[in-house]
Formats: sequence, structure tokens, C-alpha cells
Amino acid sequence: MILLFTDFGLEGPYLGQVRAVLERDAPGVPVIDLVADAPAFDPRAAAYLLAALAPAFPAGSLFLAVVDPGVGSDREALAIEAGGQWFVGPDNGILTVAASRAEGAASWAITWQPERLSASFHGRDLFAPVAARLARGEPPPGEPRPFADLVGADWPADLARIVYIDRFGNAMTGLRAATLPAGARLRAGGKSLGAARTFSDVALGEPFWYENANGLAEIAVNQGRADDALRLAVGDPVAVQAP
Amino acid sequence: MILLFTDFGLEGPYLGQVRAVLERDAPGVPVIDLVADAPAFDPRAAAYLLAALAPAFPAGSLFLAVVDPGVGSDREALAIEAGGQWFVGPDNGILTVAASRAEGAASWAITWQPERLSASFHGRDLFAPVAARLARGEPPPGEPRPFADLVGADWPADLARIVYIDRFGNAMTGLRAATLPAGARLRAGGKSLGAARTFSDVALGEPFWYENANGLAEIAVNQGRADDALRLAVGDPVAVQAP
Amino acid sequence: MILLFTDFGLEGPYLGQVRAVLERDAPGVPVIDLVADAPAFDPRAAAYLLAALAPAFPAGSLFLAVVDPGVGSDREALAIEAGGQWFVGPDNGILTVAASRAEGAASWAITWQPERLSASFHGRDLFAPVAARLARGEPPPGEPRPFADLVGADWPADLARIVYIDRFGNAMTGLRAATLPAGARLRAGGKSLGAARTFSDVALGEPFWYENANGLAEIAVNQGRADDALRLAVGDPVAVQAP
Repeated sequence: MILLFTDFGLEGPYLGQVRAVLERDAPGVPVIDLVADAPAFDPRAAAYLLAALAPAFPAGSLFLAVVDPGVGSDREALAIEAGGQWFVGPDNGILTVAASRAEGAASWAITWQPERLSASFHGRDLFAPVAARLARGEPPPGEPRPFADLVGADWPADLARIVYIDRFGNAMTGLRAATLPAGARLRAGGKSLGAARTFSDVALGEPFWYENANGLAEIAVNQGRADDALRLAVGDPVAVQAP
Repeated sequence: MILLFTDFGLEGPYLGQVRAVLERDAPGVPVIDLVADAPAFDPRAAAYLLAALAPAFPAGSLFLAVVDPGVGSDREALAIEAGGQWFVGPDNGILTVAASRAEGAASWAITWQPERLSASFHGRDLFAPVAARLARGEPPPGEPRPFADLVGADWPADLARIVYIDRFGNAMTGLRAATLPAGARLRAGGKSLGAARTFSDVALGEPFWYENANGLAEIAVNQGRADDALRLAVGDPVAVQAP
Repeated sequence: MILLFTDFGLEGPYLGQVRAVLERDAPGVPVIDLVADAPAFDPRAAAYLLAALAPAFPAGSLFLAVVDPGVGSDREALAIEAGGQWFVGPDNGILTVAASRAEGAASWAITWQPERLSASFHGRDLFAPVAARLARGEPPPGEPRPFADLVGADWPADLARIVYIDRFGNAMTGLRAATLPAGARLRAGGKSLGAARTFSDVALGEPFWYENANGLAEIAVNQGRADDALRLAVGDPVAVQAP
């Protein structure tokens, strides 16, 4: 199956046009909107969100991941195979965190060019046709590229920043909870936050952090909005305080 | 086909992760986003909305209905068969109104447990795998439970409250229009509203109620927002005024 | 494949109910949400947006296009075949611009009536079943109608107005960039705007126009919102200034 991970939003024709290309070029392959509101213009935050989501998907899954502020510039297009999954998107780091957590990442720079390439919509014109080829079982239409040369290959294993805020105001960090010391507190928005198992374990209105359903440390407020209470935005730093 | 009826929102990875589980466990079964913005944290309002929508779907349809403020507590998980349709979700009343309107509801408490059950996302970890099993034709992985014991089994046939407000500000009630006396008026937001067949039958800016396309009494304003004009919110009471 | 082009929004049950009818009546035919936020109540603006999108889709594609402020009135329902594609929707102009740009448009007024036709939701009750029939290869269930008699058949080839504003505030016009004289400027919101190839070619905060990925002249601001900066709304006029 193909998973769409983009900052295109659900509004407008953008996602539909990508889906139509996939249906035309890889008919019958299931396509799922995984995230359409990935951090806009922020491939680094997006990379840690994608990396938290990808491991739960079966081998053979293909992630079409496009947060691409450099569209129209000369950044390269990539296909990466890692842990039996495929990742297709721009060479700006969005793919590398997920791929580096898997075994044996192999990467290619895409050299194939579509007949018609718009200046602003490579998701539709370049990445989707490449994803469809891979989903059909064809080899990457490009040349091998050492994984260590990719943007993001030297990024830290976890990111001590806010990477996503959901519609309830909960703020996901780029930190996997399992990597934090037992009893650790997180400092964000000027406050020190203790851990809880879930919302109902803390007092009403109290900010805390917990391990969310994707394994990330997430900052929340019981029956409130953490983004408002702590004035958090995507990209804001988070500090780990050992107990 | 599987119909998703949730308060997860369309943003973020939540719906996509549920869809991926369904595709993995019941490949090829069509999955349709029916409602992603069901009344948040309000299983009772959600129950009357679901009950209005379900009868139009063919036998064999399966509704995966999750509005689940009690996630992580010890509320049970249910599968209900009624009128040839399946309903899967938490035992908080969300399923019971739809099921009680159909013939011969049979219900099961789910006893199957997934290998990995997050504290906050039973929609993905528990309800979706169960829905996939049923969609594959397997029996409910649980034990029979008398329908009369379920939360909501004793709720009224119709609910005299607002159950959903759409993006145009129209306010659906939990009242089926066919159950109201001919010529009835509705009192909501401090005003008494007469009935009309449709928007164009009333003056500009005038609030009224009409039978919407799903059979519910819906409060609207011609070329205006009923929620703003009458200060209506989900859960607000509505009174029926016999003519 | 069937492309949904509506102003229903993604919220609420509306799109899901249309999809369920299509799945019931034309099982297995891929259905793609192309645009769910087409200009509400503005079939003319919607017509030029649809016309910009349609040509990129393969022959055999069917566009179910519903922006229908006249629902419940006596406007006719149409099926049009043009350039190997099908268009289904109300006779209010939404279909005619796309069809008139293709070769050999043939049109039918739908005479088939469903058993149950709600006053407010012909998208589900009338247009979707007709679209499913056509997708199954059946002939249009209606009578031929001269294309020249349709609403919109006499509209201009391009529309010098704003037809869509995306979530980033970019304002698409109904003007195909290829029809404008080289070096043309656009006047909108009281300002005269020069052309650029893409965002990174202009100074921060500067409004300009460029040919978007669908061939339309689009008004934008580098790292800003054109709708705010120029106070633009759907329907606003745009003037072409020859160089």
C-alpha cells in the first residue's frame, strides 16, 4: 500500500491529483491518506513524525512523503529502501530519519524526468509517478547514492522539539518515550512537566507528558489545549530533565 | 463495506492508521469515511446521528463507530449485529440507538486482545482489527451479551437535543421528522421555529426547521448560520411544540 | 475513475454518503476526492476551476461535479460526454466550460428519477446513481439536449475573476496563463502585478502572478497570503493589462 504523508492539506485539488496519478500508473494499489497536515515547510519536524509512524506498517509499504519548500530548486529527488519499506520524496531530510532507524537503507537519486514537470507541484508530476513505478515492482529510476550523503543522515536519533500539534492542541515531540530515562521530566513553554500514563491520571487543566500511541513523548493538558496553555508551536525546543 | 464514524478529525495520522489496519487485515474491503467529525466526547449525540445515517446502507455494511471518552478505562468493547448490519465500538451507547431501531439485535462483548494495545488509541489497536475480522466473515471474537444490558439500551427513541452542526451552521437534532406531529414547531435558542420544506421556502435570514436528507429535524436559516443566529451548540435542548 | 468535485466540504456525512452510493452501484470503480471545497454557491467560478483540472485526467474519467444552489428548484440534471470524459451535474454552467474546451461534446438531460429524492441532497440521490450507471458503461438515462442550450454554453473561454483561494491564501483566477499576452500584468485588489516563474523569484512579501501547476494565472505573495495582502475573495474581478 502507498501512504501519503504531505503538507498539502485536504483542501483543494492537490491530494486528489496525486491520487489520480497513482491510480493511473499503479491501478489497484491501495492508497491511504496518512498525514495531509505534516509540518508545513519544515522537513526536519516532518521527518521525526514520519519516523514515528512508519515502523507499524508492514513490509512492502511505500511512503510518498512530500514537505518540500525547495520545490523548483535543484534539490534532488530520492527513493530509499529500508527495512523492506520504500520511501519517496525530496532530499531535504524528510525520509532519512525513518530510513536510518531501519536495517540496511539503500538510496537512489531519481534521474527519470516526466514529460511535463511543473515548477511548483513535483508531488504530482515527479514523486507520484516514481512511487507508482516502485509499487508496480520496477527498480528505482535513478542512480545509487550513498545514504551518508543524504540531507539528514547526520541528524540526531531523536529531536528535542515539537514536531506536530493535533487538533486537540496536544503537542507531539520528536522524542521517543522509550529513549528517555525513567522518571524524566520535560521542560517546554517555561514549565517542567511530569509524566503520566494517560489523561485521566492527572488533575483537570494540568499539563503533563505521556507516551502517545505512536511511541512519542507528547505534551498534553487534561481536558485542555497544551498548545494554548504552554504557548507551544511546531519547532519549539523541549528539554529533557533527568530525574 | 466498512463505514468509519469517528470524532478523530481528518487531520493528523489517526484515520490513516485505522485505514491501514483495515487494509492489512481485510484487504480489498472498501472503506469509506462516513463522518470524521462526530460530536467529540459525546457518545449520546453521536448515537442519534449514526442511527439516522445507518438505515440507508445496504445489508452487510459494517459501522466502525468510535467516540470514546472512556478509552483506557474498563468500558467494554462491543460488536452488534442488527438488521443485517454490523456495528463495532465502545459500550457507551454510541451503537445502541442504531441497533435498537433494527430488527433482532444480537450483541457480543469483545474478549479478544491485540498483542499491543495503546492506552489512548483503541480505534486502531482494538476496534479496527475486530471490524476487519467481521468483514472477513469471522464470528465476533467475544461472548454474547444481552442487548438490554448495554449502555444506551434504555435511551429514548429520539433525542430532543442538537446532535450535529455542519459547516454551514445548520443544526441537526436527534428527532426524526416523521415522529413529530404535523404542524409541530420546535423551540430552540429561545425562539419558536416553524417548519418549511426547504431553504427557499422561507424569507432571507429567517430561522426554521425542515426534514433534512437523512430524515432528521434540522434547524436552519435561509442564507445564514443557525448556530450563530440562535446560539446553538451540540447538546443543547430542543422542545417540540404541538400545533 | 470517478472524480468528486463538490462544495460539500470534507466535514459531515455528505461525501461519505455519495461514496457509499457509488460503491453500491458501481462496485470496484475507483473514486477520488478531487475537490471538496469548490466555490460554494458559485457554479460559474467552479466551472472554470473544473475546466482547468479536467484535461490532465485520462479518457474514461467521470467528473461528478456538484455546486448546486438551485437544488430543489426545476433546474435540469445533465450528463455530458466530451473528449472521452464524462461530466455529471446540474444544468447551471458548472459542467459546460470543461466540456466546451474538449472535442465533440454531447449532452443529455437526465429523465431518470430515483425512488427517493430528497429536496436538498441530489448529489447523493440523483447525480451519484447516474454517475454509477455511466461508470458501468450504461447509456445516459435521459434525452439528448443541444449543447448550445445549456447554461454556460455562451460563457467566455476564460474568466477574469478569482475562482479559488487555497489554504495558503493563493488566489487562482479563471484565466489560463497561456492565453495571456507575453509580459501581461494582472490588476487585482487595486494593485498591478507582474509575472514571475515561481515564488522564489520575487522579493519577500511581494505580490505577483504566476502560471500554476494547472495552467491558471494565480496571484500569490512570496511567504505571505495574497488573499489578505490584496483583500481578495472568490468572485472578485481581475483585469489583464497588456504590456
